[in-house]
Amino acid sequence: MGATRRLADFAVQSAFDKLPPEVIRESKRCILNYLGVALGAAHHQAVRLLIETIDELGGRSQATILGRGRRYSAAGAALINGAMSHVLDYDDTHLPTVIHPTGPVLSAALATAEWKGLSGRDLIEALAIGMEVELRVGSAVYPSHYDAGWHITGTAGTFGAAAAVGKLLRLDEEQMVHALGLAGTQAAGLREMFGSMAKALHVGKAASNGLLSAMLAGRGFTASTEVLEGRRGFCAVTASEYNLERATVGLGDEYLLLQNGIKPYACGVVTHPTIDGVRRLRDRFRLKPGDVLEIEAKVHPLVRELTGKKSPRTGLEGKFSIYFCAAIALIEGNARESQFTDEKVSRPDVVAMMDRVRAHVEPGILEDQAVVSIHTLDGRELVERVRAATGTPDNPMPDDKLLEKYMDLATKLLTTGQAEQLAEQVGHMETVEELSGMIALTIPGRRRRPS
Amino acid sequence: MGATRRLADFAVQSAFDKLPPEVIRESKRCILNYLGVALGAAHHQAVRLLIETIDELGGRSQATILGRGRRYSAAGAALINGAMSHVLDYDDTHLPTVIHPTGPVLSAALATAEWKGLSGRDLIEALAIGMEVELRVGSAVYPSHYDAGWHITGTAGTFGAAAAVGKLLRLDEEQMVHALGLAGTQAAGLREMFGSMAKALHVGKAASNGLLSAMLAGRGFTASTEVLEGRRGFCAVTASEYNLERATVGLGDEYLLLQNGIKPYACGVVTHPTIDGVRRLRDRFRLKPGDVLEIEAKVHPLVRELTGKKSPRTGLEGKFSIYFCAAIALIEGNARESQFTDEKVSRPDVVAMMDRVRAHVEPGILEDQAVVSIHTLDGRELVERVRAATGTPDNPMPDDKLLEKYMDLATKLLTTGQAEQLAEQVGHMETVEELSGMIALTIPGRRRRPS
Repeated sequence: MGATRRLADFAVQSAFDKLPPEVIRESKRCILNYLGVALGAAHHQAVRLLIETIDELGGRSQATILGRGRRYSAAGAALINGAMSHVLDYDDTHLPTVIHPTGPVLSAALATAEWKGLSGRDLIEALAIGMEVELRVGSAVYPSHYDAGWHITGTAGTFGAAAAVGKLLRLDEEQMVHALGLAGTQAAGLREMFGSMAKALHVGKAASNGLLSAMLAGRGFTASTEVLEGRRGFCAVTASEYNLERATVGLGDEYLLLQNGIKPYACGVVTHPTIDGVRRLRDRFRLKPGDVLEIEAKVHPLVRELTGKKSPRTGLEGKFSIYFCAAIALIEGNARESQFTDEKVSRPDVVAMMDRVRAHVEPGILEDQAVVSIHTLDGRELVERVRAATGTPDNPMPDDKLLEKYMDLATKLLTTGQAEQLAEQVGHMETVEELSGMIALTIPGRRRRPS
Repeated sequence: MGATRRLADFAVQSAFDKLPPEVIRESKRCILNYLGVALGAAHHQAVRLLIETIDELGGRSQATILGRGRRYSAAGAALINGAMSHVLDYDDTHLPTVIHPTGPVLSAALATAEWKGLSGRDLIEALAIGMEVELRVGSAVYPSHYDAGWHITGTAGTFGAAAAVGKLLRLDEEQMVHALGLAGTQAAGLREMFGSMAKALHVGKAASNGLLSAMLAGRGFTASTEVLEGRRGFCAVTASEYNLERATVGLGDEYLLLQNGIKPYACGVVTHPTIDGVRRLRDRFRLKPGDVLEIEAKVHPLVRELTGKKSPRTGLEGKFSIYFCAAIALIEGNARESQFTDEKVSRPDVVAMMDRVRAHVEPGILEDQAVVSIHTLDGRELVERVRAATGTPDNPMPDDKLLEKYMDLATKLLTTGQAEQLAEQVGHMETVEELSGMIALTIPGRRRRPS
């Protein structure tokens, strides 16, 4: 059996009851994180332009735009919600493939589940299976596919979205093979787009193209049955080297999703170990800004390369400044979306603290590590060695920190009470019979009961 | 100025008045051919499945499905009409890049022009400019892009559709640069899909993705501004070798569209020189089936390789049988869509004639050449040397033969009178103020006046 059919067979045969509990748990964490990063971006300009465009084209009222409440076709909602989930660059990351797995798959699955009136259990099942297919395809072609210039979340994500929607639509194995074929032949997204709105579009397109693939295959629309292994298939065409064994070895026993990471901070991932270190010292020694003479971080070379901005002028630039990240972590105790505002980067006390931050490259320090030393005015040197930053597989984001991140983002749009209700629903999603109530909670002013 | 901006500048600055008359003429021929091959496929199964799927998703009533009369969003119509125009494998071919140029570009442009109430002149302008952008992009990456496994009509076609719609929506140069960027990052389509319905889907997706690109860019949605020349741009990522000079040299002076070819016969292109030879001998010597002892064709090796099927059992298989093609050309004097039926391939007189056909590979004979000898029962050997098959740049399809091809296809659906009215409208399309009347003529039973 070829890799394509093996993955199709896995998608069709797997079921909620066969999923390991930790996969179900991680899937629900992915959903909560997704809702946070999407709601935090519901009014982003890229999202607004997509909504205006889809509104102009129209569509049946099938699925809800998160945080906005308008409803479009399942394909339109998948497109918009997918872009929304990625536009802050704050979604989850599977480091071994650098795929952001939840966005493409959940955007397609959520729209389908709402449209078809399916349950929370159905959604978790489809999400877990879709993300596994996505990560398996990505693993087969990584790194040469990514190095060549493909935005792997856009490409592998299309397969994942097709598998998830195919699962929700109850495709049989043959149809699932064709759904994966149709996904592979629509898969796209160039890294050249990084830094533009098109990057977020890739995630939306992966979701809507995957959804279209499953819908077409379910009706009997045909593709090649060997999209992965074929001589002119996805792997051969988009990767100079690939290994199809990685797509299938241990399939159904080992879940690649368990290596997923959730970003704790709303900024470049290489700044995260330094922020961890600053926060730990701040908390342990109850440091106040007035106590600090200098913050010194020993870091990986990529920190200076990617986040070396000395004097950021906007909140967005602050995300790529190790100086701002360390300073604001010391002053406010965090580095979430609400820290990265235009006002904060130019506030006098913050600028003064940025001047006291030093970042030195030190050999032997890995990308997810840092050594942070804080020199106090009273002459102490407080040192914290971060061996694995929060949100990496060796140090996963704790549930309470994930909830804090989610709340920080969701309350940009929702009241605290409504955001808490939504999180609570996600917490016991496998018992939710119909998702429309949960989705309604993403819309400001809608609540199921007074709180 | 980089290649991306050069092409955007060309698209924005060009205008109907600046187009050479032969480009306008060829564009109208492309439109007539497109309408024929689309109408001939309006009830194909792949088209039906696409219509059902788009119907399920819905959309505003903006543009018409050719031959069917339903209206969907411009994006939905572009998708369906694009697939419709390619599903018979009977559309036009630009041999130097093997792009089928009209399908992606016209499907997007026609839907947009109908939606926005634009004129025939606007449509010709957008089509000619869009096809030039498409062929320029294709020329830059051909052949390595195609050899790698990309269906170049799907990929380059997305750029062409974006440029055409961008022209119709009057994008400025900056917006057009972003439209091309958004097109390039959605461009897709694997040759692995050949032989399945997905091949036709590529053309529809190129049309709808190109349309989406132009719509988004017109609102200010951003992409990379160097999609062609960027280090991780379309060319570098999808072609091991490329030459961006070919995208721009002579741009606006030389039109690659003038090397376009229109298929005269509804079968594998390598059979065309043999069919030409048989038809010429049949006509010149007024041959009847009963006169013929043997038909001998000296051909290029690809003829046996691609069309060597000795006993086709279906009309579709007949398209890939040099034996059936030569036999039916002798019996019926043509090899159009109406010759390739299941009934005809198994008719006793046709089978008997197929037995008298021999195809020999002869060194030195090119792909668009053949030497056909017909041995008659009364002992003559009639020889015809075909140096350039009909429908190649050295021997373009004459207008009357194009009209015959169109009529053969269009009258599968329309009355002769209605098909003629539609062709007449295409003939003076530059004077058509509003395209809705012309488009209505593609729908059975609709006519502007009794005929």
